[in-house]
Amino acid sequence: MQKKNGPGQAWPHVIIVGGGFGGTHAAHALRHAPVRVTVIDRTNHSVFHPLLYQVATAALSSDEIAAPIRSLLRRQPNTDVLMAEVTGIDVDRRLVRIGAHELAYDYLVLASGSEYNYFGHDEWARHAPSLKTVTDARRIRSRIIQTFEQAEQETDPDRVHALLTFVLVGGGPTGVEMAGALAELTRYAIAPEYRHIDTRSARILLFEAGPRLLAAFPERLARKAQAELQRKGVEVYTGAAVSTVDASGVVVAGRHIPSANVIWTAGVKASPLGAQLGAPTDRLGRVKVQPDLSIPGHGEVFLVGDLMVLEQQGRPFSPGLAPVAIQQGAYVGKRIAQQVAGQGDTKPFAYRNKGNLATIGRAFAIADLGWLKFSGLLAWLLWGGVHLVYLTNLWNRVQVFATWLWAYMTYDRAVRVLTPDSLQSDIQVAPQAEMRAVGADGAPLEDRM
Amino acid sequence: MQKKNGPGQAWPHVIIVGGGFGGTHAAHALRHAPVRVTVIDRTNHSVFHPLLYQVATAALSSDEIAAPIRSLLRRQPNTDVLMAEVTGIDVDRRLVRIGAHELAYDYLVLASGSEYNYFGHDEWARHAPSLKTVTDARRIRSRIIQTFEQAEQETDPDRVHALLTFVLVGGGPTGVEMAGALAELTRYAIAPEYRHIDTRSARILLFEAGPRLLAAFPERLARKAQAELQRKGVEVYTGAAVSTVDASGVVVAGRHIPSANVIWTAGVKASPLGAQLGAPTDRLGRVKVQPDLSIPGHGEVFLVGDLMVLEQQGRPFSPGLAPVAIQQGAYVGKRIAQQVAGQGDTKPFAYRNKGNLATIGRAFAIADLGWLKFSGLLAWLLWGGVHLVYLTNLWNRVQVFATWLWAYMTYDRAVRVLTPDSLQSDIQVAPQAEMRAVGADGAPLEDRM
Repeated sequence: MQKKNGPGQAWPHVIIVGGGFGGTHAAHALRHAPVRVTVIDRTNHSVFHPLLYQVATAALSSDEIAAPIRSLLRRQPNTDVLMAEVTGIDVDRRLVRIGAHELAYDYLVLASGSEYNYFGHDEWARHAPSLKTVTDARRIRSRIIQTFEQAEQETDPDRVHALLTFVLVGGGPTGVEMAGALAELTRYAIAPEYRHIDTRSARILLFEAGPRLLAAFPERLARKAQAELQRKGVEVYTGAAVSTVDASGVVVAGRHIPSANVIWTAGVKASPLGAQLGAPTDRLGRVKVQPDLSIPGHGEVFLVGDLMVLEQQGRPFSPGLAPVAIQQGAYVGKRIAQQVAGQGDTKPFAYRNKGNLATIGRAFAIADLGWLKFSGLLAWLLWGGVHLVYLTNLWNRVQVFATWLWAYMTYDRAVRVLTPDSLQSDIQVAPQAEMRAVGADGAPLEDRM
Repeated sequence: MQKKNGPGQAWPHVIIVGGGFGGTHAAHALRHAPVRVTVIDRTNHSVFHPLLYQVATAALSSDEIAAPIRSLLRRQPNTDVLMAEVTGIDVDRRLVRIGAHELAYDYLVLASGSEYNYFGHDEWARHAPSLKTVTDARRIRSRIIQTFEQAEQETDPDRVHALLTFVLVGGGPTGVEMAGALAELTRYAIAPEYRHIDTRSARILLFEAGPRLLAAFPERLARKAQAELQRKGVEVYTGAAVSTVDASGVVVAGRHIPSANVIWTAGVKASPLGAQLGAPTDRLGRVKVQPDLSIPGHGEVFLVGDLMVLEQQGRPFSPGLAPVAIQQGAYVGKRIAQQVAGQGDTKPFAYRNKGNLATIGRAFAIADLGWLKFSGLLAWLLWGGVHLVYLTNLWNRVQVFATWLWAYMTYDRAVRVLTPDSLQSDIQVAPQAEMRAVGADGAPLEDRM
């Protein structure tokens, strides 16, 4: 079954854990190096996280922003891709564990990213899903569509109100972008399709525990983003910490808000694999790395992306941004290639900040390029262009561009397939006790029209 | 919550069960009639069945060939859409049951289609999924992708052989089209992406119990289709009935064929709802309808599509084709509108056969237009054009055309996202006992490269 000329048997083995931005860029940087590379990921695809909220809000199909890792690395004969879940790491024996199996490495690149942080309340995850993976995005989308289907059939006005109340917990980029997208979904895209509910009356509440939205952006831009959200009908509450999440909704500042659709967009913490390295971590589980992104005492173990924290000018640097993971992945790949070639020390990693963008629905975004800060249509066009350029492959670029153009012209949201197997039991659609179609008393549908 | 001007309260109520070709065309034909229409479907979308096999073989995304029923009927204020499963029908009391609820109708259009027929062996469904819904197609696709992932990690040659053996049971259009698509997937699209297996060596076996493929086509065209399949590397066996299906593969003519990927493309039977009408049915559960598609004694109950069988010139007519469902749906909608308007008898339903097409991979199809029968590239272009024209909406047309064009130029199959939650336990990918990455003896990956 061995069809390809493999790399040399004696070549050092580089294991890369995680096929996201950091992992694939590290692998790519090693494509001409005399090493054998194995990329391990629990899924078979690399997902473009910055657009995941558009999958969750029915604007894009998950297939448009994800590409098989194999496909991305197909032209690298020295690279193997393994769909498996890494369950442990032994840095002393230089082994990665996959269940009962062990895989030896000479160099390790840990790029397994982050997961959402429920701040000690993991039980909230059931009622307030977060948005990290394709599965998450599809689940949130199914839940949103299902909510409207149920509201259309519901006769109890309180229940309809809860079904049409969307709560976003956390005012970072994901929360802000989700809020904007939800506002457009409910205000325009689907409004003409329902007969018994007015989706335009849906409430979209964005709660942020901190004093303002978008803490990573300059205050002036964050204020503009907030004003634009409010103009689009989103209710924004800052200094508002959520104290309880359950099936009935959330409690904020002692007040219970009934909602069938709570989405968790608050902070993240590092993937738990980082803790297995024996290196010091911060309170979010991020591993403290040296200036070359390796860990103390193990120059062959590197961390990139959300998983690491770097001390820079006395301040922790770990912004959780795609460009950071991309640049770090490329840096580490190059550094390993140099070490294998016996070349001396390279320069420490330095992030080249090209800017920071966030969008709030159609025709509005904020842009912080450092030397220039602006908002509005121009920032939105820049946002669109940058995201298209960074999409994983050409075909995804073509598809996303076409879909955006179509959506811009028509306000349509085409990606709304709901299958019986994706129904979520805690918001069962039908049949239910108070179904609109016909009440328990046998009152037929027609009485309500 | 009542935002729209509903139709008149006294208007007759038409219930349409099923939002496929027949159901949506019936609803559409009633858009200007003084009736209230309720379309009930267990999903929220209408799927373009003739291209479902392309979703199952990673050529198209399910979002590209499905559209929300609500969206298709959004411009009809007299039409309600209900996502619910009809569990019973009482033609005497003129009621449709949804669980414990009842919904009254004045006219009923039953368009709930067909399901696959395992000929008394429903337990085979677990090991040999069929292709009727979006969920089916996604499941088959996940299974196929997962098979290659597992084969890549597998060390036992027999197991690799079983993993790379695809069995299609049934040589009708779905079986033939699936076989052609699988041949291209394994021969071209993904071949460069695997390091340890040669996907081009995958066996694709098509078993047909009858004497030839494509019984609905003229024999000459069927022979051409078979030759083309064989040219593409598909092994075709006619007169070959499958006697057993289990987790290890199939038994055909007393011979066991190990396979991890058996797909059921044999006959269909009518949706079980038809049996509840009290009208005579044939052995496949199809309801025998009168020339106007109503049932005897109930001129207000109509059946369209795969669910009905019509006596025509002494022969049963129920070809299970999309154009039949479309024409019947439109006919019944028009007939109900005429009855409501107090107009006399309309003409009986007559099928206008515009032709029959089937495709075998790229650049080859067969076309039977009655007066003209041909095969090859021209038939393939006709096939593509016809399918694009009949796609449910403009955006789907644009997307599918672009995807086809891209695939034709690049041989790429972009739709291959596999998530951990879609893994199927009977062909677990990793970790497993004989994982290639590293054996139980600790033999590392590199020994195998």
